[in-house]
Amino acid sequence: MTAVQQWDIFELALAGPAGGNPFLDVEFSARFTHAGGSAVTVTGFYDGDGTYRLRFSPNQPGEWTYETQSNLHELSGQRGAFTCTPPAKGNHGPVRVHNTFHFQYADSTPYRQIGTTCYAWVHQDDALQEQTLATLRSSPFNKIRMCVFPKWYAYNRSEPPRYPFEGTPPNKWDFTRFNPAYFQHIEKRITQLRHLGIEADLIIFHPYDAGHWGFDRMDAATDERYLKYVVARLAAHRNVWWSIANEFDFMDQKKPEDWDRFFRIVQESDPYGRLRSVHNGRLLYDHNKPWVTHASIQNGSAVEDAGRAVLYRDVYRKPIVFDEVKYEGNIPERWGDISAEEMVHRFWQGTVAGSYVGHGETYKRDDDVIWWSKGGKLHGDSSPRLAFLRQVLEAAPCDGLEPIDKWQDVQTCGKPGEFYLVYFGKQRPTEWFFELPRAGLSEGMIFRAEVLDTWNMSVSPVNGAFKIIKDGTYRYHADGMSKVKLPGNPYLALRIRRAEGDHIVHHENGTRIYGE
Amino acid sequence: MTAVQQWDIFELALAGPAGGNPFLDVEFSARFTHAGGSAVTVTGFYDGDGTYRLRFSPNQPGEWTYETQSNLHELSGQRGAFTCTPPAKGNHGPVRVHNTFHFQYADSTPYRQIGTTCYAWVHQDDALQEQTLATLRSSPFNKIRMCVFPKWYAYNRSEPPRYPFEGTPPNKWDFTRFNPAYFQHIEKRITQLRHLGIEADLIIFHPYDAGHWGFDRMDAATDERYLKYVVARLAAHRNVWWSIANEFDFMDQKKPEDWDRFFRIVQESDPYGRLRSVHNGRLLYDHNKPWVTHASIQNGSAVEDAGRAVLYRDVYRKPIVFDEVKYEGNIPERWGDISAEEMVHRFWQGTVAGSYVGHGETYKRDDDVIWWSKGGKLHGDSSPRLAFLRQVLEAAPCDGLEPIDKWQDVQTCGKPGEFYLVYFGKQRPTEWFFELPRAGLSEGMIFRAEVLDTWNMSVSPVNGAFKIIKDGTYRYHADGMSKVKLPGNPYLALRIRRAEGDHIVHHENGTRIYGE
Repeated sequence: MTAVQQWDIFELALAGPAGGNPFLDVEFSARFTHAGGSAVTVTGFYDGDGTYRLRFSPNQPGEWTYETQSNLHELSGQRGAFTCTPPAKGNHGPVRVHNTFHFQYADSTPYRQIGTTCYAWVHQDDALQEQTLATLRSSPFNKIRMCVFPKWYAYNRSEPPRYPFEGTPPNKWDFTRFNPAYFQHIEKRITQLRHLGIEADLIIFHPYDAGHWGFDRMDAATDERYLKYVVARLAAHRNVWWSIANEFDFMDQKKPEDWDRFFRIVQESDPYGRLRSVHNGRLLYDHNKPWVTHASIQNGSAVEDAGRAVLYRDVYRKPIVFDEVKYEGNIPERWGDISAEEMVHRFWQGTVAGSYVGHGETYKRDDDVIWWSKGGKLHGDSSPRLAFLRQVLEAAPCDGLEPIDKWQDVQTCGKPGEFYLVYFGKQRPTEWFFELPRAGLSEGMIFRAEVLDTWNMSVSPVNGAFKIIKDGTYRYHADGMSKVKLPGNPYLALRIRRAEGDHIVHHENGTRIYGE
Repeated sequence: MTAVQQWDIFELALAGPAGGNPFLDVEFSARFTHAGGSAVTVTGFYDGDGTYRLRFSPNQPGEWTYETQSNLHELSGQRGAFTCTPPAKGNHGPVRVHNTFHFQYADSTPYRQIGTTCYAWVHQDDALQEQTLATLRSSPFNKIRMCVFPKWYAYNRSEPPRYPFEGTPPNKWDFTRFNPAYFQHIEKRITQLRHLGIEADLIIFHPYDAGHWGFDRMDAATDERYLKYVVARLAAHRNVWWSIANEFDFMDQKKPEDWDRFFRIVQESDPYGRLRSVHNGRLLYDHNKPWVTHASIQNGSAVEDAGRAVLYRDVYRKPIVFDEVKYEGNIPERWGDISAEEMVHRFWQGTVAGSYVGHGETYKRDDDVIWWSKGGKLHGDSSPRLAFLRQVLEAAPCDGLEPIDKWQDVQTCGKPGEFYLVYFGKQRPTEWFFELPRAGLSEGMIFRAEVLDTWNMSVSPVNGAFKIIKDGTYRYHADGMSKVKLPGNPYLALRIRRAEGDHIVHHENGTRIYGE
C-alpha cells in the first residue's frame, strides 16, 4: 500500500475528458476516511491534458481509504487506500496559532516567525529563482511572502514566463481556463520552500497590476473560481498560509464586503484550516473577524517605538505579524530606505512587544533585481542579525515571549518568574539596575543574566547571580541594589533566566553573590 | 399648549396604583407622533408614590401628539399634545459622532471633548456635590465620567446617602424595587451638568463594589431590569452618554457575552441612540462591534508617545477617547502619580493623533476627598492648560483635527492645506524648519504661523509668511528654507494656517516675506 508521511501529500491522478471546459464543467472530489472514523472531503482540480488531480494531506497516522465523487462517471466512485506513517525528522506539520499570540507547528514545536518578502520571485527567470532558493537556504527566514499573480509596479515592468490563464498577454484572457503549467510551477517552488523549512505566505490578490493584466479587476465569479482553484491545488502543502491580498485597500476595484467574501470562500474551501490573514495599505482590515487567524500588518511606525506594537495585540488578541515595517535599502521611496540597524531594531522592538516582524530588502540596482520583489541575493546587513535573533527566540520558553507589564514597561518581555528579555534599543546604557516587573516574582528568587549585543551578535554572561527583593508596589530589584555593567553601545539586550535552585544564593565564602 | 424646546424634555406624570410591585407589574409607554408623520415610542417608569412618569426629548420642532399604552387601564389611552419650539441659545442638542473620528452636537456645532472623571461625586454629601458643581462651572471640562452606583474602593470606604434599591445596607436588597429618590437625585445632577454644558458619561456598572453592596454581582434578570430602568429614566437627557461599565474586564462575576447583551439592551431601549461605549481595565472590548459608537479607552501609555494613539484610530475607525491616561496627582498607585505637565502633554499627544483625552486628579488628602472620585476642588495645575487647549480646539476647523501623515509624521495634525498643529512635546526646539507633509498642498501656497506655549498658555504670531515649494517626494518646505524661531522650552506647538489670498507673497518692497 502507498505510504505517505503525516502532513505530507497523498496525490491521486485520474484520466478524464480533455474536451469542453473541464474547469467549468467537472466537479471532482473525494472523501478520505481514517480507520478511526474521522473523514475529510477534499476537492480536486483539472491539471490539463485530461488529467484530474486531487491532493490530500493526512493529519493522523494509520490507514486511510477514499472514494471519489464527480459529475463524470469516470471520475466517480474510485476507491483506494494508503497508509499514513508518522512524520520523519524535520516534518513538524503545519503552523498553527498557539497561546493566543504565538505560533507552533502541529507537532508542538514552537515556530518563531522570521519572515521575508520576495513578492514576485516565482515569476522571474529560472536562474534567478534558483539563486533566490540558494539565498534562502543560508538565510534565517522561515517564512516568505510571495504573490500568486505576477507583479507590474515600479522596478517590476517585465512580463512573467507564464500566465495564470489561457490567452494573450497583456490582457486578452479566457478567465474560464486556468493555465495548469503556471500553477505547477508555483507548486514546485512551494515544495522547495517546504524542504527548506520555509512557510509560503501566499498572496492571492494584489494591486500591483493596475489593469496591465487585469488580474486585479476580474469579476466576482472569476475571483471565486480563482480562489477555489488556488485552494484546491495548494492547500495540501503544509507550509501554505493564505494572505487574501497585499495592500487590499489599494485595490480600488474591490468593495469592502468582497474581502469578507474572499475570506469565507477560502475558509470554506480549505479542509485544513491553513492560516489566514490579509495585509493592509493605509486602512486596516478588521482582524477581529472570526475567519482571520492572525493579523498581518503593514506599519513601520508600529515597531519604531516599543510601546506601539503591543496595542495591536490588545485589540486583536491574535498573533500580530508586522509583515511590512519598511525595507532595508536605499531607494528613494521612504518605505524602502531604512538601515540594516533599523531593520534589526524593528525586529527586536516587535519581539519585546510579543509580536513578530518581517524583513525585506530594497537596495537600488541597475538591473532592478531587488530582493523585496524579485529575490536573488541579499546585499544588506540585517539577515545575520536576524539569524542571531532567531537563535535567541529558539532558546526562549516554548509558549512565546509576552510583554510582562504592558503599557508600563515596554522594553521587557518574557515569561514571568522564569525568563526575560530586556531590550535597550537606541539607548547606550553603561549599567542597568537589576529590576523586574512583579508578575510571577517572589522574594528570594535567584536570576542569572547575559548581555546580548543584538547587532554584534554576542552573548556575554554576567558574573554572579541576583537575588530579588520586593521594591515597593510594582517592581522587584536585586538585593544590594546590584547593577549589571553594560558596554554602552546601542542595540543591547539582557537575557535573564531564573537560576536552578536557590542554593546558589550563598557564595563559598558565605556572602551573597550578585552581578559585579 | 405646553411648549418644549427641541432636545429638551417633555414629561408626563400619571397617577396609578402604588400597591403590588409597580416595577415588575406595570408596563407603560407612549407613542409620540410628529405632525410630519415620524413617531417615537418611549418607555415610562415608576417613580414611587403611585406616580408613573414618561419623558420624551423631541428631535424636531412642531406639533407632537402622544398616546399612552399600558397593561393598566388608568395608564392606557391617555392622549395629549405639545409644541416643540426651536432650541434656545446654548442648546445645541445631543453630541453625535461626526466625520468618523470626531464629535459634534446635533445642531452641527463642533464638540471638542475635554473630559474629566469624578466617579462617585453624586454619592457624596450635598455640600461636597455643590462644591463639585462650582468647580466644574469654572473648569474647561465638557464631559464628566460618573458612576450610577456608589463606589467601594481605596479612598472610598463610606456609605452613600441613598441606595439604588429598597433594602438594608450594606447588602440586603430587594432587587425588584428601585429607590426612586436615588435616581431623582442623579437626574437633578445630570440636569445641572446640562446647564453647565457638560456631558454626563454615565457608568452603568463598575467593579468598585467587590460584593460590599453586591451591585457588581446581581443576576441577569436584575441587570436587565436595572439597565432598562436607567435608560427609561435618563435617556431623555440630551447630555447623557452610556458607558456600559468602567474596567469591565475587572468584573469577575460577568461573562464576556454579558457585555454584548448589556450593549444590546441599552441600544434597544434607548429611543435616542445616545453615545455608547465601555471602558477597559487590561483587556479591551471589541470596539468594532456595531453597537459601540466610540472607543472609551484606559491606557496611559497610548498618549505617552505620539505615534501610539493613532493606532487605535486605525483599528476602530470611530472616535477614540482616552478616558483614563493616569491621573494628575501624588498617590502611591502608579495610575495616580503623573505631573500636571505630563497630563497636559498627554492631552496634546492625543490631540495631534486625532483622538480625545480625559483628565482626572488624585492628589493625596487627609480627608480622602480626591477629585477623581469624590469631586470637590481641583488642586492641580493642568486644568487652566486644558482650558487653553480647548480654546485652540475651538478655533480649529469644524470637522476635527486629523493626523496628516499618520505613521510617518506623528507630531502634525490638522486639515490638509488649511490648518496645522505641530506639537513638539518634550523636545526643546529653538528653531523649526518650515516643512509640511504633502497632502493637500501645492506649490506657492502661503501660510502664517503662531508659536503656542501649551504650558505657559501663550500665542505668539510669527512675523511674515511662508510660501511653500515641493521638497522631494513627501514634504513641502518654505521657499528660501525659512525657519521659525522657537523659545527652546518644552511643550511648544505651532499653529499654521493658510493665509487668505496669495497677494501677500510680495512684501511692499517687492521681496518675498517669510518668517524671520
